[in-house]
Amino acid sequence: MIRVLHVGLGPIGAAVARQIAARKGLRIVGAVDIDPLKVGQDVGAVIGVDRKLRVKVGVDIGTAIDESKPDVAVLCTSSSLKGVLPELMEVLKHGVAVVTTTEEVAYPRKDNRAIAKRIDAAAKKAKVAVLGTGVNPGFTMDALPIALSAVCEHVDRIEVWRVQDARIRRLPFQQKIGAGLTPEDFQRRVENGRVRHVGFTESIQMIGDAMGWKLDEITDDVSSKIAETAVSSEWLSVASGQVCGIVQDGVGYVKGQPKVTLRLEAYLGAPESYDSVLIEGTPRIYSKIDGGVHGDIATAAITVNAIPAVIAAAPGLRTMRDMRLPSFDGGALSWARKG
Amino acid sequence: MIRVLHVGLGPIGAAVARQIAARKGLRIVGAVDIDPLKVGQDVGAVIGVDRKLRVKVGVDIGTAIDESKPDVAVLCTSSSLKGVLPELMEVLKHGVAVVTTTEEVAYPRKDNRAIAKRIDAAAKKAKVAVLGTGVNPGFTMDALPIALSAVCEHVDRIEVWRVQDARIRRLPFQQKIGAGLTPEDFQRRVENGRVRHVGFTESIQMIGDAMGWKLDEITDDVSSKIAETAVSSEWLSVASGQVCGIVQDGVGYVKGQPKVTLRLEAYLGAPESYDSVLIEGTPRIYSKIDGGVHGDIATAAITVNAIPAVIAAAPGLRTMRDMRLPSFDGGALSWARKG
Repeated sequence: MIRVLHVGLGPIGAAVARQIAARKGLRIVGAVDIDPLKVGQDVGAVIGVDRKLRVKVGVDIGTAIDESKPDVAVLCTSSSLKGVLPELMEVLKHGVAVVTTTEEVAYPRKDNRAIAKRIDAAAKKAKVAVLGTGVNPGFTMDALPIALSAVCEHVDRIEVWRVQDARIRRLPFQQKIGAGLTPEDFQRRVENGRVRHVGFTESIQMIGDAMGWKLDEITDDVSSKIAETAVSSEWLSVASGQVCGIVQDGVGYVKGQPKVTLRLEAYLGAPESYDSVLIEGTPRIYSKIDGGVHGDIATAAITVNAIPAVIAAAPGLRTMRDMRLPSFDGGALSWARKG
Repeated sequence: MIRVLHVGLGPIGAAVARQIAARKGLRIVGAVDIDPLKVGQDVGAVIGVDRKLRVKVGVDIGTAIDESKPDVAVLCTSSSLKGVLPELMEVLKHGVAVVTTTEEVAYPRKDNRAIAKRIDAAAKKAKVAVLGTGVNPGFTMDALPIALSAVCEHVDRIEVWRVQDARIRRLPFQQKIGAGLTPEDFQRRVENGRVRHVGFTESIQMIGDAMGWKLDEITDDVSSKIAETAVSSEWLSVASGQVCGIVQDGVGYVKGQPKVTLRLEAYLGAPESYDSVLIEGTPRIYSKIDGGVHGDIATAAITVNAIPAVIAAAPGLRTMRDMRLPSFDGGALSWARKG
């Protein structure tokens, strides 16, 4: 039985916890959150499962670790590497492995490398592994295209599209992508960084490194998708001419040539949802997942599925590139024992 | 620079060697083959590259290793685990890591487990890794569906189709799938095991183990595809009513329920080539590679791309499941150094 501590029980943390509560071989033994409304409650009530888990949400990581003796901490608090650093270091100080959905941990970009080195050193000292994962970054726009490239003799260029009809996603997601804003409001939010998928630079760098490309420039641009006709979801109505979602383009260049291109379209009314990978190379590969990979379920799932692998991994700050083949984990116990 | 010894320079071995000859960070330092017409020749002439590689094809593995001091041996001689056992053990006796396209090594099935244990023990004693890989088994019908399952909270059933228009493949492949035979001749060849893709049982077992399913029965059935109208390739013409290729169905069952289903169709005139993965689960995943993954190029490519990872891997008989994320290897040197 793998003992799991949750750090952060927001929407993502709670989704991970719900899957763990239902999965064989894993047990929630502790949880902490900064929300005073959650502290002191039973984890079952906080994450919305219909039974008591007999674990109360605490507030201090060190205390929770001392009391619950977890094998791994699942950290879901922030997208920012700097933001999670204190919590991450506290967990590592207590010698516990970490799986986190923090986008910037998935593959630390250049300006985060110094912090990443500190995390790596702390993890090695604690003899545990740290992994950042999720559906994106972590899978659809980096690990999956990298895995597909394994059958290539030569790779010229990789282009990944993630197109989602946001109508099927939850309200916070629809708000996050700016649905319902005026073009001016949207632009203002872009400028102060509030509508942006975090992780493009990380995914581009991961692909570039895997392919052996020395990327000399990475761009990451957000623009609005304007509704041509009125469109609505269960929660929101968007008039024609207003913003119905986001278009984000990321490009990694080598000497002015685009080598890695990522495009995310998430808006109400997209005619088709899909995840596609195009590898221009020998052979040429075009792979498409019809309907796309559902972000909320998938991020929680890949986080849970990574737990046994992280426990078995070599100490240090790991990435999806150097972890063993990702997989649904149907036998957490047997896997973990291999380590 | 990674030093490579080739054991076997048939069509697949030669294809691997051609890619290695063209790749940075890898160097062919030795080669052996049993064909007297190849022994003594320059490897460049044997594999069909337009320059001398200044390496002569030898006949004895031990001598070749002593003389060339390889870091890894690429073994492409047979589909059978028993068939390659003497060569494999000889390489391991000399302390050299192995990547092989031997289908039965990719994921040793039950009746090969005793031999697999001997290989594992010999590899551990030699402190090197052994990996069986290829496009199939090794990727499209096992590692890829397993990797896609990583975003699933729950998996009910996995179905993988590989459909190929054999007109674009080489003549030996078209002959291997029985194109041009009468239905009676085809049936005779099925009975003595001469038309059969080797690897279904291995791929099914790999998927089953990854999902945590205890498969209690695995079936693997070959049937002929009959040409409804005349069809021809560059090399072969098949009259209506004759065999134009193969259909192979493999199923892994748990208590009578099909949990893993593989279907291979390879025949002249298939209207569409593709590789598809269906995961019935939460979320449901349907992934399709348009045009399919070209078998000859891809098997050689994934073998070459695996070399640095195998050198860095933990000693023993490894599988694609416990190797790090597969990837085109664009930086063999830097990867290998990590080990």
